[in-house]
Amino acid sequence: MVRVGICGVTGYAGYEALRWLTRHRAVSVVFATSEAQAGKSLAEVYPGPLDIVLTSVEDAPFDQVDVVLLALPHGAAAKVAVRALAAGAKVVDFSADFRLDTPDRYATWYGHAHDFPEMLPVPYGMPERNRSAIRSARLVAAPGCYPTSVILGTMPLFDAGVVTDGTIIVDAKSGISGAGRAAKINTLFGETHDTVTPYNIGHIHRHVGEMEQELAKHSRGISPTVLFHPHLVPVVRGMLSAIYVRVAPTLSEDDIRALYLARYADEPFVRVLPAGTLAAMAHTTNTNMCGLSVTLTQPGWLTIMSSIDNLAKGAATQAIQCMNLMCGLDETEGLQ
Amino acid sequence: MVRVGICGVTGYAGYEALRWLTRHRAVSVVFATSEAQAGKSLAEVYPGPLDIVLTSVEDAPFDQVDVVLLALPHGAAAKVAVRALAAGAKVVDFSADFRLDTPDRYATWYGHAHDFPEMLPVPYGMPERNRSAIRSARLVAAPGCYPTSVILGTMPLFDAGVVTDGTIIVDAKSGISGAGRAAKINTLFGETHDTVTPYNIGHIHRHVGEMEQELAKHSRGISPTVLFHPHLVPVVRGMLSAIYVRVAPTLSEDDIRALYLARYADEPFVRVLPAGTLAAMAHTTNTNMCGLSVTLTQPGWLTIMSSIDNLAKGAATQAIQCMNLMCGLDETEGLQ
Amino acid sequence: MVRVGICGVTGYAGYEALRWLTRHRAVSVVFATSEAQAGKSLAEVYPGPLDIVLTSVEDAPFDQVDVVLLALPHGAAAKVAVRALAAGAKVVDFSADFRLDTPDRYATWYGHAHDFPEMLPVPYGMPERNRSAIRSARLVAAPGCYPTSVILGTMPLFDAGVVTDGTIIVDAKSGISGAGRAAKINTLFGETHDTVTPYNIGHIHRHVGEMEQELAKHSRGISPTVLFHPHLVPVVRGMLSAIYVRVAPTLSEDDIRALYLARYADEPFVRVLPAGTLAAMAHTTNTNMCGLSVTLTQPGWLTIMSSIDNLAKGAATQAIQCMNLMCGLDETEGLQ
Amino acid sequence: MVRVGICGVTGYAGYEALRWLTRHRAVSVVFATSEAQAGKSLAEVYPGPLDIVLTSVEDAPFDQVDVVLLALPHGAAAKVAVRALAAGAKVVDFSADFRLDTPDRYATWYGHAHDFPEMLPVPYGMPERNRSAIRSARLVAAPGCYPTSVILGTMPLFDAGVVTDGTIIVDAKSGISGAGRAAKINTLFGETHDTVTPYNIGHIHRHVGEMEQELAKHSRGISPTVLFHPHLVPVVRGMLSAIYVRVAPTLSEDDIRALYLARYADEPFVRVLPAGTLAAMAHTTNTNMCGLSVTLTQPGWLTIMSSIDNLAKGAATQAIQCMNLMCGLDETEGLQ
Repeated sequence: MVRVGICGVTGYAGYEALRWLTRHRAVSVVFATSEAQAGKSLAEVYPGPLDIVLTSVEDAPFDQVDVVLLALPHGAAAKVAVRALAAGAKVVDFSADFRLDTPDRYATWYGHAHDFPEMLPVPYGMPERNRSAIRSARLVAAPGCYPTSVILGTMPLFDAGVVTDGTIIVDAKSGISGAGRAAKINTLFGETHDTVTPYNIGHIHRHVGEMEQELAKHSRGISPTVLFHPHLVPVVRGMLSAIYVRVAPTLSEDDIRALYLARYADEPFVRVLPAGTLAAMAHTTNTNMCGLSVTLTQPGWLTIMSSIDNLAKGAATQAIQCMNLMCGLDETEGLQ
Repeated sequence: MVRVGICGVTGYAGYEALRWLTRHRAVSVVFATSEAQAGKSLAEVYPGPLDIVLTSVEDAPFDQVDVVLLALPHGAAAKVAVRALAAGAKVVDFSADFRLDTPDRYATWYGHAHDFPEMLPVPYGMPERNRSAIRSARLVAAPGCYPTSVILGTMPLFDAGVVTDGTIIVDAKSGISGAGRAAKINTLFGETHDTVTPYNIGHIHRHVGEMEQELAKHSRGISPTVLFHPHLVPVVRGMLSAIYVRVAPTLSEDDIRALYLARYADEPFVRVLPAGTLAAMAHTTNTNMCGLSVTLTQPGWLTIMSSIDNLAKGAATQAIQCMNLMCGLDETEGLQ
Repeated sequence: MVRVGICGVTGYAGYEALRWLTRHRAVSVVFATSEAQAGKSLAEVYPGPLDIVLTSVEDAPFDQVDVVLLALPHGAAAKVAVRALAAGAKVVDFSADFRLDTPDRYATWYGHAHDFPEMLPVPYGMPERNRSAIRSARLVAAPGCYPTSVILGTMPLFDAGVVTDGTIIVDAKSGISGAGRAAKINTLFGETHDTVTPYNIGHIHRHVGEMEQELAKHSRGISPTVLFHPHLVPVVRGMLSAIYVRVAPTLSEDDIRALYLARYADEPFVRVLPAGTLAAMAHTTNTNMCGLSVTLTQPGWLTIMSSIDNLAKGAATQAIQCMNLMCGLDETEGLQ
Repeated sequence: MVRVGICGVTGYAGYEALRWLTRHRAVSVVFATSEAQAGKSLAEVYPGPLDIVLTSVEDAPFDQVDVVLLALPHGAAAKVAVRALAAGAKVVDFSADFRLDTPDRYATWYGHAHDFPEMLPVPYGMPERNRSAIRSARLVAAPGCYPTSVILGTMPLFDAGVVTDGTIIVDAKSGISGAGRAAKINTLFGETHDTVTPYNIGHIHRHVGEMEQELAKHSRGISPTVLFHPHLVPVVRGMLSAIYVRVAPTLSEDDIRALYLARYADEPFVRVLPAGTLAAMAHTTNTNMCGLSVTLTQPGWLTIMSSIDNLAKGAATQAIQCMNLMCGLDETEGLQ
């Protein structure tokens, strides 16, 4: 059995990780941390099906686990990752602390210097792109939810060199769990129900740096610019990104779908929908799947719908998928 | 034109009051306060249809208005009421500060001494019960949302002396706006959507003191005890109370409905539904109405469904109804 | 008093029209029709605050009203409009039957010949664009909800000649009431809650014909093509369209906002938000407002957020706004 | 491997059953039926993670499976059960066709004669009550969702003989999936969102017959009467029943909780919450758990909150729990 520790289990993504690991046959969860609730049992705090005694990060026995899933806030995560690695554990970090390849890029998007610049770059935890690097890594940066939907949604196009304008428009709709479990007025029920709220539109959201960095690795001569328009919609979990891309006008919709089908033919967690079916948010809720549809709306104008569960493929289950690879387990174990 | 000031306009109930007053033909809103946002315009804070420059309570010109609607937290309200009254304004207080008739009762339910015991009692602002007292009052205590639904829902029974057991059970479902606009984890979207959450069940919720005090004025020899079971349901606004009462077993459902129809025959804002129709939450949303249905489930066992909008009849519009009475206006003005 | 009849009052838009007319000081509602419920009272069918005896269209006294609001399905509406006009009433039609200017265009988008081709064209009921034509019209075609949001959201750009590419991308989010009150599996609660569902994406949705026809009247040499991507989101009412337009790269965001502010300076129901504030769906719910924000995401790339209430400005209240103009009333009467 | 067939997989409960069986290690799903969609693949109809070729009941190979899960409408189910049994398969029926013990009782509650009166009674599929009867049965009647929550919630009281009044009041809140996937106006999103709707209150709902029949088996001399008040709340799945019971006034809350803890000590899927914690709907969503809290609101007045997932413990997973028992599998297999 692979021994696992979870840091930040009372946040949405950490709790989700524990929920999936409970069904995973090849792991045992050794500890789970919560700063605010240390000493209590999880079922006492959230009386659902899950239970484990909560500890503080300070007291967590990093030397007694094989791998740590870090569901901590940005900034806090890196320090804990260093401790866990030093204790001999492998680490999958859910935060943004290790997603950007260079200290400069980090400083540009996060507004301050990276605490551990010498640790960069770290393998980006998207198995569909760099499975072998993840397999051999001791530290993996699990991707952000928005970048997961956008990168999986456009990578085949960039790889094939059929994108004709590097500026792509993304209109993304996210469940409100993406904003975390902190007490804030703007994520109260009364502020978010019965409405759709755009935020951080343009070239502002921190996930843009991550998307552009990773897509650039696939673009052939075209420098990708992502004009990103996230919206909060009144669902707890789920994400649907509509991605608007200019492509070579000679391509048919079938041509493009064939690119996607070929690219993801062997991927257990990406599903390219047949002609006439559009990816919707609910298709992937509570799964590690990414659902994709491609629609040519006019010659040269392509719309991709990319659906994931922001807490699952966009956070916890993609991290578990990485963990499986890092620990030599079947990549799909616990994720069906 | 009656000149009105609103204190606490950035809370849900205060904002609701301003929304209705905007359509009211006989008032002009002179000021609106917000401690956190003083100096800004309301539309800047909430870019909806309403706008007014926000001031602090400290700077509010109480001497330039005829009436003040106080949508402030419990405790804070009483002090401001005193100031407003001293400045010559009439006051409708949305808080619980003046709802209980005696300092003792206040201390029992709120856990500390009342700041202005000599001001008690104050007319309870439910026009269907004490219209004339409201008309001549300078200070009125607007009822709580739960008490409004329960008192309107049972008063005809107590008045008629047909209740055979003073212990009544209330199972109430409230929209989440009832918990206010403060940043709290337990009213985040992620905590309240897709669930129903009971809280404060039994004889604990502070509104119980108010219900029992007022119902006792209608009971004939029977001392009412309210076993109260509030639940949060995933709607922003609205309230539905199911009220379970033992009645004389000789009464038919039609007999009981006749009591209600007679009692509320002249009330513009109470509607007793015909046999076969159950009051639902949506029937009264965005109105000052109370919708009532009575169902005899077995001889002697009565179920009343009482529907109000917690922010309207349960707060802002019932306060405006009182204001209309206190200012000599048509009671229904601005409330249709 | 202007005498009004409403056809189709048990649909969402017809009911909404009655709701607003109840507060309108200058009209009286003479009749309301419902084919399925004729003979009953409205409050019997929907026990909310509204009530009126329901009649069938067949029995409706068109000769006793000054104006008829037609909230009937496409196809059915035109025939009733003809009857109402013949009886001497003016008509505001909520359906698509008279929105397209030519029989050919109608046949292209609706797939069959128009029943009354000689009646086309009819003034398009968007007062911000053709107020005087509406004033003198006997029959007005109230715009579709999506076209209202898109046309108000882009008209200033086309008028100013600053659009550099006629192909614009619209990503629209609509409340589910837009799909009507017919019994269909795909609009059940269980199918639409907790998800976002795109549909009819590309150049397919019938509202595209209406948008392109009307925008062409504003474009200066550029033929507009709307790539339209509607989504159902889990709210009952409300609409937010994100509109992606290429503009002259020399323009600043302030330049563009100035165009909008100038264009809508005298419009009571369009609000252009200040820099830094994004239009959200809730800003306009339950109002006749259109809320607009403009954001330059990169030089030459503009994002407009356009918010309306699909049942209000997108249907019933825009129709009432037209009715006010047609009947010589204050345009804003009953709509504040 | 146990070979399973599912009838009615495109309904909510049948789909839920397939979802859980996909994770079950000891079964293989051989066929799944859908009358409306026979011949298509499930993923074509609902493009989520599940897929299987759909067949009609007519063509289903009942002789090639060990057990059939019947998620068919009442009335239709019994006929198919007979066919499946004749083909040698065991059957767990989700419908009400075999829940009532006698033809008379069935006729009373369902309004017509039972088609197969000689087959009654059938073991009631609630393992917490009659595990051994289920183990040896070839046909089991899976309980209704409401009865599951009410029977598990009150059985320990009746068993212990502490109930002093056989008339108990239930105020139940159900997710809308409970009303099924048929096209009906009253379960449209627009009719059910933003509201709470009571229905069938009193002694009317068909599940009452089932509750009273089963509770009578536990009552000691007291004949139980259930005054049942179901409400639709705007969640897709989940159920919370508040149960109001009179008990011996000498009992403390701890006494009563001890009864529950003792009764369910060995039950893997019932959780009795500690003092101070109330069962909420979300505690059991997506699980086979029943969560119970007991609160003494006054001496002699007890409130039980009983939480289940209406599609899981209230339908599909309780049926799988029965299937596990009937097939000699670990009772908890596939249900964690």
